[in-house]
Amino acid sequence: MSRLLIFQSDFGIADGAVSAMYGVAYSVCPELKICDLTHEIPQYNIWEASYRLIQTVGYWPKDSVFVSVVDPGVGSTRRSIAVRTVNGQYIITPDNGTLTHIKRMLGIEDAREIDEERNRLPNSGESYTFHGRDIYAYTGARLASGLIRFEDIGPAVHPDSVVELPVTEPVMDGDTITGTIDILDVRFGSLWTNISKDLFKTLGVPYGGRVEIAIMNDTREVYRNIIRYAKSFADVYIGEPLIYVNSLDYIAVAINQGSFSKAYNVLTGSNWKISVKKAQL
Amino acid sequence: MSRLLIFQSDFGIADGAVSAMYGVAYSVCPELKICDLTHEIPQYNIWEASYRLIQTVGYWPKDSVFVSVVDPGVGSTRRSIAVRTVNGQYIITPDNGTLTHIKRMLGIEDAREIDEERNRLPNSGESYTFHGRDIYAYTGARLASGLIRFEDIGPAVHPDSVVELPVTEPVMDGDTITGTIDILDVRFGSLWTNISKDLFKTLGVPYGGRVEIAIMNDTREVYRNIIRYAKSFADVYIGEPLIYVNSLDYIAVAINQGSFSKAYNVLTGSNWKISVKKAQL
Amino acid sequence: MSRLLIFQSDFGIADGAVSAMYGVAYSVCPELKICDLTHEIPQYNIWEASYRLIQTVGYWPKDSVFVSVVDPGVGSTRRSIAVRTVNGQYIITPDNGTLTHIKRMLGIEDAREIDEERNRLPNSGESYTFHGRDIYAYTGARLASGLIRFEDIGPAVHPDSVVELPVTEPVMDGDTITGTIDILDVRFGSLWTNISKDLFKTLGVPYGGRVEIAIMNDTREVYRNIIRYAKSFADVYIGEPLIYVNSLDYIAVAINQGSFSKAYNVLTGSNWKISVKKAQL
Repeated sequence: MSRLLIFQSDFGIADGAVSAMYGVAYSVCPELKICDLTHEIPQYNIWEASYRLIQTVGYWPKDSVFVSVVDPGVGSTRRSIAVRTVNGQYIITPDNGTLTHIKRMLGIEDAREIDEERNRLPNSGESYTFHGRDIYAYTGARLASGLIRFEDIGPAVHPDSVVELPVTEPVMDGDTITGTIDILDVRFGSLWTNISKDLFKTLGVPYGGRVEIAIMNDTREVYRNIIRYAKSFADVYIGEPLIYVNSLDYIAVAINQGSFSKAYNVLTGSNWKISVKKAQL
Repeated sequence: MSRLLIFQSDFGIADGAVSAMYGVAYSVCPELKICDLTHEIPQYNIWEASYRLIQTVGYWPKDSVFVSVVDPGVGSTRRSIAVRTVNGQYIITPDNGTLTHIKRMLGIEDAREIDEERNRLPNSGESYTFHGRDIYAYTGARLASGLIRFEDIGPAVHPDSVVELPVTEPVMDGDTITGTIDILDVRFGSLWTNISKDLFKTLGVPYGGRVEIAIMNDTREVYRNIIRYAKSFADVYIGEPLIYVNSLDYIAVAINQGSFSKAYNVLTGSNWKISVKKAQL
Repeated sequence: MSRLLIFQSDFGIADGAVSAMYGVAYSVCPELKICDLTHEIPQYNIWEASYRLIQTVGYWPKDSVFVSVVDPGVGSTRRSIAVRTVNGQYIITPDNGTLTHIKRMLGIEDAREIDEERNRLPNSGESYTFHGRDIYAYTGARLASGLIRFEDIGPAVHPDSVVELPVTEPVMDGDTITGTIDILDVRFGSLWTNISKDLFKTLGVPYGGRVEIAIMNDTREVYRNIIRYAKSFADVYIGEPLIYVNSLDYIAVAINQGSFSKAYNVLTGSNWKISVKKAQL
């Protein structure tokens, strides 16, 4: 067996940390195929690590092994775990909330606590700070290469016990849906909400129709406007705001060839709310 | 057949967009060898996407498949195309000018319009915004892996019909050549012009000789100096400006171990002109 | 033989320079496995290139071939060399100090000066500026693929002749160790010193014990505080500074979930000194 091994972290790519993980994995098995999800997760941002996993795992083959290391609690008593999803993929990570979206939106079939005595790079000595390399990359490479089976990783733990970050669900109140801004499309400054396409469709807005949106930071209104619901950016003018269905089938807000996030200083998190309703004609 | 598959985009590497393309391609064929040209093309900058292709494809093997996605018109009526170059390489891209330099400087032998009904990731549903993943990466992977032939991509279109951005040619006027600053060597801040080595040589300046250069932003003169024509940076002092032949065999201007672009706020595009002539002794 | 080929440079990944190196290497041998150490070495920073090598090579398999191109003297008379380390790995680089740490801390078993007549990309013509692509990537790929043997690279030169940058050793004076801040953990802003764990242990500070540290920029004191010696970040409060053993078994200073470098404007180099002693109770 030679599965794909995919790394994610908040290490950046400017120093040797990611390369050390690659080296460890290729030392385990030179035939592995190793790729990156991203290493630009903002430091310690477990939420974003969780989101990037659910955004991408569905596009990878069955049996792929993901290793995600955003680990503010490295060296604490937080568990290290490996899970098998209902889609037959594997994710190895500190159990700190990184699996929040995978657990809720996809499903975890089996979970194991990593036995760090057996699954640790030999002679990785007294370094207590670099579990990404010594535990996670090493174990991921051994699993992906078939040197160990999933069951060898450690004792089974109940999938329900996998740590979740708090998640806010969108609320429908009369003709208005209020959700949160979960994450940015980093490069293009679009806002990705937690309002699903299906929920949005209950508003009965056709493509090309107009939607009144309001964005609040806690109690402060940051933006209010009537914008078009478009199939794609090309349906609106350059510089025009739009609401659309993103690649995860959630509602997103953008400016065609601009950055909505930068234009209105909109950020992400549970204190950033967005409400949408069908605009009056 | 297992060709190389090389991705270029303006997606950046901070979120999951590039990883989703990799996942789609490996799902098509796990044996593929996938690499990046760059994902740091400035957003929507088709000119730079075109330039980075001509800068690099010549160093890759015959049969390599390039997928370039800088696509401000996604969702519009712009065509998606695949071309075979005269060198026997393949490029898959929105037909928006991304092939400008390839068409002019290398040559397109055969062009196909992508039949997006047949060549689309199954179940990629209602997402109209992510053709990079659902059309281009998917089709590139199927071509590179041999699952489809070039002819299966879609109906032939005439190579002449491939969209080109306007290109300005350098002009020789008496003893002065005037060209444009096409692009930056991003990291080192060098200015890459559209004046070829061969044209420059008609000025008869030997290595070590002196060249008078002037840089204009529209009608405003931004820089004028007499600088040395050097074989390489090491031929001038640290901090000294120089004119040299870049890796594409065009004339470039730099500061040894400094950034010419930052030092004089010089940018790129057709309104940035540079003139060179042999300096009087 | 098909060894791993690992690239490092100061080219960044925003233009086509790194991709051209990949293309050249795959043109030599499509079966190669090519990875990156990093391409974000600060421009011309040979010291950091040297440090990133010693930080990572130990995690890669025997026979791996590293190509490192930080080359402010490209085009000068500086030699191009290939070395075999005592661990049986290969490094190809301009001989400008990039091997300083490898030579001192690991050891060079054999060194060859690259014969640039024989080991140069065919038809790489008059470009004197891009040896990374035409000499180093090309030669690295030929060595990694087994097309040439190490001995074919060029004439043997004595390992002692390999250029070294000046290195400062830490000094023990009474109960105080004074060292330098060699480098940053870029992403997390930690300071990595040249004080080894073993030297630090002579101070007799147990985990959880308190250490008085002072940081000087030349003669100016920038920081003085008593901080905890922790096994890992999780042993201190969020926002608390700590001293710990880094992944290279040297002493480092950080702020848990903050950036020590940014907090106190501490940079690296021989004029940045740090002294540590056991704090009085």
